[in-house]
Amino acid sequence: MNELKMISEPVKGVPWQEPQEKPSDAPVWRYSENPIIGRNPVKGVARIFNSAVIPYGEEFIGVFRGEQTNGIPYIYMGRSKDAIHWDIDKEKIPFVDEEGKPFMPAYAYDPRLVKVEDTYYIIWCQDFYGASMGIAKTEDFKTFVRLENPFLPFNRNGVLFPRKINGNFMMLSRPSDSGHTPFGDIFVSESPDMVYWGKHRHVMGKGNEWWQSLKIGGGAAPIETTEGWLLFYHGVSGTCNGYVYSIGGAILDIDNPSIVKYRCENFLLTPEQWYEERGFVPNVCFPCATIHDSESGKIAIYYGAADSYVGLAFTRLEEIVPYIKEHSTVTASDTEIGRR
Amino acid sequence: MNELKMISEPVKGVPWQEPQEKPSDAPVWRYSENPIIGRNPVKGVARIFNSAVIPYGEEFIGVFRGEQTNGIPYIYMGRSKDAIHWDIDKEKIPFVDEEGKPFMPAYAYDPRLVKVEDTYYIIWCQDFYGASMGIAKTEDFKTFVRLENPFLPFNRNGVLFPRKINGNFMMLSRPSDSGHTPFGDIFVSESPDMVYWGKHRHVMGKGNEWWQSLKIGGGAAPIETTEGWLLFYHGVSGTCNGYVYSIGGAILDIDNPSIVKYRCENFLLTPEQWYEERGFVPNVCFPCATIHDSESGKIAIYYGAADSYVGLAFTRLEEIVPYIKEHSTVTASDTEIGRR
Amino acid sequence: MNELKMISEPVKGVPWQEPQEKPSDAPVWRYSENPIIGRNPVKGVARIFNSAVIPYGEEFIGVFRGEQTNGIPYIYMGRSKDAIHWDIDKEKIPFVDEEGKPFMPAYAYDPRLVKVEDTYYIIWCQDFYGASMGIAKTEDFKTFVRLENPFLPFNRNGVLFPRKINGNFMMLSRPSDSGHTPFGDIFVSESPDMVYWGKHRHVMGKGNEWWQSLKIGGGAAPIETTEGWLLFYHGVSGTCNGYVYSIGGAILDIDNPSIVKYRCENFLLTPEQWYEERGFVPNVCFPCATIHDSESGKIAIYYGAADSYVGLAFTRLEEIVPYIKEHSTVTASDTEIGRR
Amino acid sequence: MNELKMISEPVKGVPWQEPQEKPSDAPVWRYSENPIIGRNPVKGVARIFNSAVIPYGEEFIGVFRGEQTNGIPYIYMGRSKDAIHWDIDKEKIPFVDEEGKPFMPAYAYDPRLVKVEDTYYIIWCQDFYGASMGIAKTEDFKTFVRLENPFLPFNRNGVLFPRKINGNFMMLSRPSDSGHTPFGDIFVSESPDMVYWGKHRHVMGKGNEWWQSLKIGGGAAPIETTEGWLLFYHGVSGTCNGYVYSIGGAILDIDNPSIVKYRCENFLLTPEQWYEERGFVPNVCFPCATIHDSESGKIAIYYGAADSYVGLAFTRLEEIVPYIKEHSTVTASDTEIGRR
Amino acid sequence: MNELKMISEPVKGVPWQEPQEKPSDAPVWRYSENPIIGRNPVKGVARIFNSAVIPYGEEFIGVFRGEQTNGIPYIYMGRSKDAIHWDIDKEKIPFVDEEGKPFMPAYAYDPRLVKVEDTYYIIWCQDFYGASMGIAKTEDFKTFVRLENPFLPFNRNGVLFPRKINGNFMMLSRPSDSGHTPFGDIFVSESPDMVYWGKHRHVMGKGNEWWQSLKIGGGAAPIETTEGWLLFYHGVSGTCNGYVYSIGGAILDIDNPSIVKYRCENFLLTPEQWYEERGFVPNVCFPCATIHDSESGKIAIYYGAADSYVGLAFTRLEEIVPYIKEHSTVTASDTEIGRR
Amino acid sequence: MNELKMISEPVKGVPWQEPQEKPSDAPVWRYSENPIIGRNPVKGVARIFNSAVIPYGEEFIGVFRGEQTNGIPYIYMGRSKDAIHWDIDKEKIPFVDEEGKPFMPAYAYDPRLVKVEDTYYIIWCQDFYGASMGIAKTEDFKTFVRLENPFLPFNRNGVLFPRKINGNFMMLSRPSDSGHTPFGDIFVSESPDMVYWGKHRHVMGKGNEWWQSLKIGGGAAPIETTEGWLLFYHGVSGTCNGYVYSIGGAILDIDNPSIVKYRCENFLLTPEQWYEERGFVPNVCFPCATIHDSESGKIAIYYGAADSYVGLAFTRLEEIVPYIKEHSTVTASDTEIGRR
Repeated sequence: MNELKMISEPVKGVPWQEPQEKPSDAPVWRYSENPIIGRNPVKGVARIFNSAVIPYGEEFIGVFRGEQTNGIPYIYMGRSKDAIHWDIDKEKIPFVDEEGKPFMPAYAYDPRLVKVEDTYYIIWCQDFYGASMGIAKTEDFKTFVRLENPFLPFNRNGVLFPRKINGNFMMLSRPSDSGHTPFGDIFVSESPDMVYWGKHRHVMGKGNEWWQSLKIGGGAAPIETTEGWLLFYHGVSGTCNGYVYSIGGAILDIDNPSIVKYRCENFLLTPEQWYEERGFVPNVCFPCATIHDSESGKIAIYYGAADSYVGLAFTRLEEIVPYIKEHSTVTASDTEIGRR
Repeated sequence: MNELKMISEPVKGVPWQEPQEKPSDAPVWRYSENPIIGRNPVKGVARIFNSAVIPYGEEFIGVFRGEQTNGIPYIYMGRSKDAIHWDIDKEKIPFVDEEGKPFMPAYAYDPRLVKVEDTYYIIWCQDFYGASMGIAKTEDFKTFVRLENPFLPFNRNGVLFPRKINGNFMMLSRPSDSGHTPFGDIFVSESPDMVYWGKHRHVMGKGNEWWQSLKIGGGAAPIETTEGWLLFYHGVSGTCNGYVYSIGGAILDIDNPSIVKYRCENFLLTPEQWYEERGFVPNVCFPCATIHDSESGKIAIYYGAADSYVGLAFTRLEEIVPYIKEHSTVTASDTEIGRR
Repeated sequence: MNELKMISEPVKGVPWQEPQEKPSDAPVWRYSENPIIGRNPVKGVARIFNSAVIPYGEEFIGVFRGEQTNGIPYIYMGRSKDAIHWDIDKEKIPFVDEEGKPFMPAYAYDPRLVKVEDTYYIIWCQDFYGASMGIAKTEDFKTFVRLENPFLPFNRNGVLFPRKINGNFMMLSRPSDSGHTPFGDIFVSESPDMVYWGKHRHVMGKGNEWWQSLKIGGGAAPIETTEGWLLFYHGVSGTCNGYVYSIGGAILDIDNPSIVKYRCENFLLTPEQWYEERGFVPNVCFPCATIHDSESGKIAIYYGAADSYVGLAFTRLEEIVPYIKEHSTVTASDTEIGRR
Repeated sequence: MNELKMISEPVKGVPWQEPQEKPSDAPVWRYSENPIIGRNPVKGVARIFNSAVIPYGEEFIGVFRGEQTNGIPYIYMGRSKDAIHWDIDKEKIPFVDEEGKPFMPAYAYDPRLVKVEDTYYIIWCQDFYGASMGIAKTEDFKTFVRLENPFLPFNRNGVLFPRKINGNFMMLSRPSDSGHTPFGDIFVSESPDMVYWGKHRHVMGKGNEWWQSLKIGGGAAPIETTEGWLLFYHGVSGTCNGYVYSIGGAILDIDNPSIVKYRCENFLLTPEQWYEERGFVPNVCFPCATIHDSESGKIAIYYGAADSYVGLAFTRLEEIVPYIKEHSTVTASDTEIGRR
Repeated sequence: MNELKMISEPVKGVPWQEPQEKPSDAPVWRYSENPIIGRNPVKGVARIFNSAVIPYGEEFIGVFRGEQTNGIPYIYMGRSKDAIHWDIDKEKIPFVDEEGKPFMPAYAYDPRLVKVEDTYYIIWCQDFYGASMGIAKTEDFKTFVRLENPFLPFNRNGVLFPRKINGNFMMLSRPSDSGHTPFGDIFVSESPDMVYWGKHRHVMGKGNEWWQSLKIGGGAAPIETTEGWLLFYHGVSGTCNGYVYSIGGAILDIDNPSIVKYRCENFLLTPEQWYEERGFVPNVCFPCATIHDSESGKIAIYYGAADSYVGLAFTRLEEIVPYIKEHSTVTASDTEIGRR
Repeated sequence: MNELKMISEPVKGVPWQEPQEKPSDAPVWRYSENPIIGRNPVKGVARIFNSAVIPYGEEFIGVFRGEQTNGIPYIYMGRSKDAIHWDIDKEKIPFVDEEGKPFMPAYAYDPRLVKVEDTYYIIWCQDFYGASMGIAKTEDFKTFVRLENPFLPFNRNGVLFPRKINGNFMMLSRPSDSGHTPFGDIFVSESPDMVYWGKHRHVMGKGNEWWQSLKIGGGAAPIETTEGWLLFYHGVSGTCNGYVYSIGGAILDIDNPSIVKYRCENFLLTPEQWYEERGFVPNVCFPCATIHDSESGKIAIYYGAADSYVGLAFTRLEEIVPYIKEHSTVTASDTEIGRR
């Protein structure tokens, strides 16, 4: 094997903290000052949690799930110098259609933010006569033009890859249903133009391991590495008294990401802290983004905590990839090409 | 508009505390010494939470949902000098029938306590071959005579108005079912005599706002104001992992309270403190009573917290009414007369 | 015991047919020409089934659940010379409010038709922000004035008694819920004026016998007899693959009909014929009315069959009452006064 | 309005029979010799029901849902001289991939068969890690090449339009879930190449009419007419004891079929015959195809009956289109462009 | 392979009829005079269906599930000269305990009747604080002594083997739950003494074939043959609108019946006749017994039809065993020893 | 009554702490240093909670439910000098079959550890084609030989008695189903040899008291006393938003433990501390073992807390037995012999 590296731009100022004690298991540790965004961060917004952040110029930009005091989520933008302390905009992101006219969804949640070839794409979940995905693009974080919704309902957890593969845009998603029914596998779809999508392939399903035995869903945008696409995702366990959302890790084939090369049988982070265990939705660690630096191998994982807070956790490429490989268990439906 | 005022007796000694920091949103703030009633308040009672209080002479009297150590709730009486520190009776309220014979329900919970023309009425939920309402009256808080149950099962959250309207007693209720099925609208019913009830009208249903999108139910007895009946109620949100009960506010027409004049689209208080987030039922703020003073405009809201504690929150008439009006969203079914 | 008799007007022309073979069990037998009303009886109406009929002058009048070809039920009137062959009106009954203005429900089904003191009352199930009861009165079967809805939702199967008891109107009903949840007990309520209702009492619940172990509901208007009120009702069995609706019989105390004197443990009629076993809702025999003659003791039972047809069955007072008494099993909750 | 006409090839030998009695409502009548395909039509096949047929040369070809004696459905081909009596192949259709290698789904059901520009397309429902659509094409009914699955799971009832619109293939589908959850709206999607699909638009949802108040789904391939696309679809009613599938009719805008111009509030055919009421799934009329002749205006509708038989019904263009228009009720979500 | 034979006593007078037309698939055909027992066979009994019969002396004896007119099932005995026309006793079987005192279950259904070493055992399902099995023995069909209930709840479909294996009694059963939850695998248990049971082994689970994909359960007592134990069992399919019960066939290892040697992927009989498709529970063919003759190879299968009737079907050993083997599909969990 | 005593070996070094304040109700109090085992106790194990401990030589041994970081539970052994601080083995207990070959279950949870006649038995819940019980024995805590699974699925909470009764091993269990359906009664079964089990008797069901109104299950191995078998068990309450598991107490007849002599209507301990209220499963106190000393009457109760921690609580025999007797409420099904 060649040297393990990220294939991405270096990022200065990745938020970082060494672990206060060595993790006994997976090499992922929490930021000691968590949560980094508390309740009622902005007038009219009760909670910010599932969020996506990205370096932008000398600073960082984020798109946030802001739960309004009427309970309806929308996407808010924020800026930060250090990717830890955030200034959240007072107003929702004002999406427009391709003619520049306002084109707001009825609600919008769980955004991801991905840069592909100089354009920034936001993908989120919204009402399309049922929950499905919305997409918008921006180049300046001032004008946000919505594109065609990529998929029919019901769908959640759309995650775009940070570059085209074989000439096509690629997006992970998790087909679901009209409720919160406990099932869900991750698929990948292709598009030549961000308008029409096809060649859908199954990537991976829920696992035999109990922490992900109910359902799973894509998390942060995959990180390109010499080993494949490093994916942080969420897995859900159904207990006799509610669900528990943990963070898992997998590595997908670089050229054909419907093939799972490695999939860690252990969770990487599971709710253990008060801000993860109690809140609007108890027992949730839900990853939506990373900031990672190809030079240092540092990875900062942003995750929603208890649908009430933003948490931050850290790992290093050279620790996490070997851990995933060492504890990898893959099934036939993970490693198949995913076509039927 | 005339000057905004409560139309009620002045009350000396309303419990009160100025906010420790200005609320960023709704002008409702918690008492810093919450919870005011903790677990195991009296031998044989594990938890007191949903409770109703009222001024009585120089002091305050309350009727409390006392969850016995066998898990079965009954109604207990308590007295307080300051409406914050309470002496709870060791024995349940000994209801009798109209002939003075003991007439106890199998269980009793979520009491309200309302004075109408020199008589005090307790309304609660009990078994009537299914959950429905019980009512009793007292003039001296020594003898409590049960009246006819006003409604057929299944019904919960009965709230009497503090005066007759157009010559009739008026009561809010929330028809429901034999379980905890997530639905429920508020109706108002009339009675000439507290025996026969009719002219039922729909007041308002669950809202489009997510915090109250599952079900709602009447809370504290309405406060008469120059703007209409000020109603604090509860609204419930269904998350992917449990329910969240918040406090909402609305203003009903003075002469025809089936008409909602204003209804605040934002919750006024939602579970954010440990005593609201965790306990026997996590994530519950459930208002059952206010003590309010028409001279100062002070309103103290008593609410059950996590079905384990009693919480206290404050607002002022001159702050809360404008807030509700400013953020009001009403639907057709709110503003209709409610007859079909 | 005095001689067993009906206490009601004689009715000439009760539809009648002797049994073709003696019933092996309950003395109730079907009309050999069943169903008496087939599918598509009138343009725009796909099915007529649950129906109520009454003698009126020299002929008979009926109010019928007419399932329109859009699937929405309304109430239609019909006339018949022999109570077997019916002319159904082309138009729905045009209900008006007390000022004579049109006041139609969104839908209306399962009507009963009862004469009390020279006025004819129709009671049916309709939308009142949830299923509940509507009532209208007529004296001439031309003008039908709707009265106040007697009960809050959710309620079905309202059955008025054919005379006042102790000076009050009396009505059976079956509190239920917003869906088709399998439960339901029969209650009786009183009203001095058909506006306000109270003194609700539990009459009887589902039975231990499997044919009525899921839920029950009032059926035809009770027949006054020297033994008490003879009630034909429906009971429902939950099989591993759907429900079965049968007809049962009980006798209620004359002065206090919340007390069940006798309740037959056996069904009186259960789906066995093709028109009962298959149709829009398979396996349904649902009684809504009788025509009975106090002179001959003949009773003709009208029942909906498979939610698709009208069936007719016969019995004699002197056979059915002894059969019910002989096979009577009553529980504590049947024979209690029904107050809690 | 111009003269009402189909815009399609004339078809000689459309199966036909005049009604035996004039329908009292919708001008659709059954073939008196129904069912045209009975149980156990071919060794190894227990039932044939949902089926699609098309003229081909001098005869007719059909693709049939054949329920094997192991209960697993596959698609079988059949041929007929008169489109009434069918010779069903002994073997399943042997789908291959684009390289000619066998590529059979785990199961396959509810096929539609549509000709677009000299190619015949079969669309069906199959396992794609959950129920979704499969497509194959043939030109000679000998080689059947599967194309990319158009949509992510979960999806059913894919119906291709018989020509491109604005240069794109168009397909109706009904997003659903992993079970038989009772919901479902019809969407339309576009594809430039039968590989990538997008510009999804909502066509219509379940209706307020009870016969279609649970869910709906596309049926036969739309028939192009001077009034728009004539669509026969199915609507489902949820009774207290099972579902009922009826046939409905709508007319979609020619150039923008996400817009519903007319939608008949009445069902066109509902289960009333023994072969529709009882069988493997009781109470089902499920349309999958028509054969229609632009010269005579005759339309023969093929529908699955009780998931056990094939039924045949007839109508005439000049009767059905006016009937649909006359009884049309459309909602905002029907007539919107269907983009959110 | 040796010649295929039954290893059992010859039985004269096995009911028999050659097929009226050759079955296109499985070599099992119905008796043309079905149902052999109709509704209301005895006063007080509404339906007889799931039933077990056995040769006894010169005639036949049967134990029948008799559904009383109160809906509660008990076990009734009957006698027949030809095993087709049955005289059913007027009274339930009067079970006693080991001291001869009456010991009746609250209800009893789905009996099997098996002779082991000169003793006749009846096994049925009854209330044991939840559904589980009861057993009784008789030698003269006059005294029926109940033995210890073999298993904890919840369990159904107990089927005893007709001889000991390795010195122990052997019984199939289907662990289930407190309701009609759709799951269920067949296990086999051993007992040295009919009091204590153990060495439980898994025999087979529901199948991949859709006709048995919901649950399965043992049927008739296994027939010993030179190929192994021939078992007729039932399999259940879950449709979008109810369940369908079919008859399947398998062959178990003679010495170790937890091993399935062959399991037919096709059903042997599925509801197709009116008496199977409609009745108290639509779409049920439920086998409970066979009468079989080792000389002629004739097998008469008795099955409950629609929980309303008794049906009779025929096959021959030399036809059915090859058919099962030819269409056999076994899974790992079928062929494992069934121990974990 | 004779003097109240335990009939068991004295145990030196029972963990002990006097209550910090006198309990207002049941005489059970928590250890002030709870939880005694925190999260991530051993590499690869995320949580230890439901656990059983026993004196062994000069020290204590325990078997623990260790929830691995892949979410799958297994049984781990640990040792302790003081029964408070525990050294947990790094590896799971390596069960073997009777021939000494590895025989590991797919998962294993909720172990109990009981000594009967010099042999130590571990009973736990595991997959047996559905959840049921596994048993193993050891004499040296080095070799653990699995015995036959005692019961068919579905079963949980197996608790062995610490001595034979009437010559037979006795075991409590709680028949359940394939999910977490909310029901469950406790039964007792007998075995002469730990291979075959029978004479199953019902012990007690869920109670009328709300804290145990959903389901119950055996807890710690019964303690033999002069009053009978002292049983700590768990009872579950179903709230409108999740379950609550509390600890209850009962006393069973010494010779016939299916008879409940006393059953405390009040819970003995209910979740009130943070480590009981929040964690992997909120609101759980689940007792699995005691250490008790017959000389001092001290009883230390080990209980799982929130499926995340091990808690420790204390009581004294001379306090707890009178409390249970004083607050005893038993039903007919408790005190019956439990045979049907």
